[in-house]
Amino acid sequence: MELNDTDRKIIEASIREIKDFPKEGIIFKDITTLLNNKEAYTLLMNHLYTRYKEYHLEYIAGIDARGFIFGAALAQMLQIGFVPIRKKGKLPYTTIGEKYALEYGEDEIEVHIDAFGKKKGAKVLIIDDLIATGGTANAAATLVNKTGAECVECCFIIALTFLDGIKKLEEKTEVYSLIKVD
Amino acid sequence: MELNDTDRKIIEASIREIKDFPKEGIIFKDITTLLNNKEAYTLLMNHLYTRYKEYHLEYIAGIDARGFIFGAALAQMLQIGFVPIRKKGKLPYTTIGEKYALEYGEDEIEVHIDAFGKKKGAKVLIIDDLIATGGTANAAATLVNKTGAECVECCFIIALTFLDGIKKLEEKTEVYSLIKVD
Repeated sequence: MELNDTDRKIIEASIREIKDFPKEGIIFKDITTLLNNKEAYTLLMNHLYTRYKEYHLEYIAGIDARGFIFGAALAQMLQIGFVPIRKKGKLPYTTIGEKYALEYGEDEIEVHIDAFGKKKGAKVLIIDDLIATGGTANAAATLVNKTGAECVECCFIIALTFLDGIKKLEEKTEVYSLIKVD
Repeated sequence: MELNDTDRKIIEASIREIKDFPKEGIIFKDITTLLNNKEAYTLLMNHLYTRYKEYHLEYIAGIDARGFIFGAALAQMLQIGFVPIRKKGKLPYTTIGEKYALEYGEDEIEVHIDAFGKKKGAKVLIIDDLIATGGTANAAATLVNKTGAECVECCFIIALTFLDGIKKLEEKTEVYSLIKVD
């Protein structure tokens, strides 16, 4: 189930744009105003709930840190487990890691090795607020599959479609995004 | 409303202890196993919902990053706004900051200046997974009050009561913690 255009416009209008953050030339999409806009946030979460209740998901994995907000709220609505995917060094138990390239250098995200339970193939939705170049999301999908679980979809509130992050990610998993920024 | 002892024991048993993380001598309380224990997590969230629906809260403020998980889920249940309190430099719009002392040096957390709306005195619950020395929580409570809102309570899943973080925080606001570690 896709979001209808009326609801999309209400959600889109609730997201604040900040010029030149974190550096010159970037228009940052500030989702904190969405979190506090009752109408827009309720529409968003109810849509995600309606879409994903048909997926028979077992876990939602949220990407550190804004992915925790949407992911934990959705996991609560669906009454399933929530798993944090974090920057290297933040998780206390045995982890699996996956590196990804940054503009300069690289970074690494991790997940607990037992995060998705003992049986293989647990169905997992990955959620984050935004996809740009898709480096983190790609690493997250690889990571989930490496644990023996199955990343069935990656969900983003916002997709910067002028970057080719989604295209690369679609080679690996299903991708769903609500607000597309050309 | 306080948590009953039977439920407390189930929640407590779902939290994993990791020795010597992040450094030697510390027993880290790993709440990721609580997030994936359906019985324990449901008990926890239903208890928080039952307790706080009587408080007429307007916002829940979660402390970066584990506070986002419990805070966003509870805000969703209560159908109220969620506000992230973040490490300095992470929030894109105009912020208010508050410094706090670390073992060596200091750190700073921030919140958006308009996070709790235009009217004064909005009732805010601050939530985090754990209170130790209470430096972050104290700064967070000061920060919420500085914006013109009112921190009515700070809620923690776990309190390390052998440190005096709670005592100091109680001079400023109400404090509620579910699992007490002596």
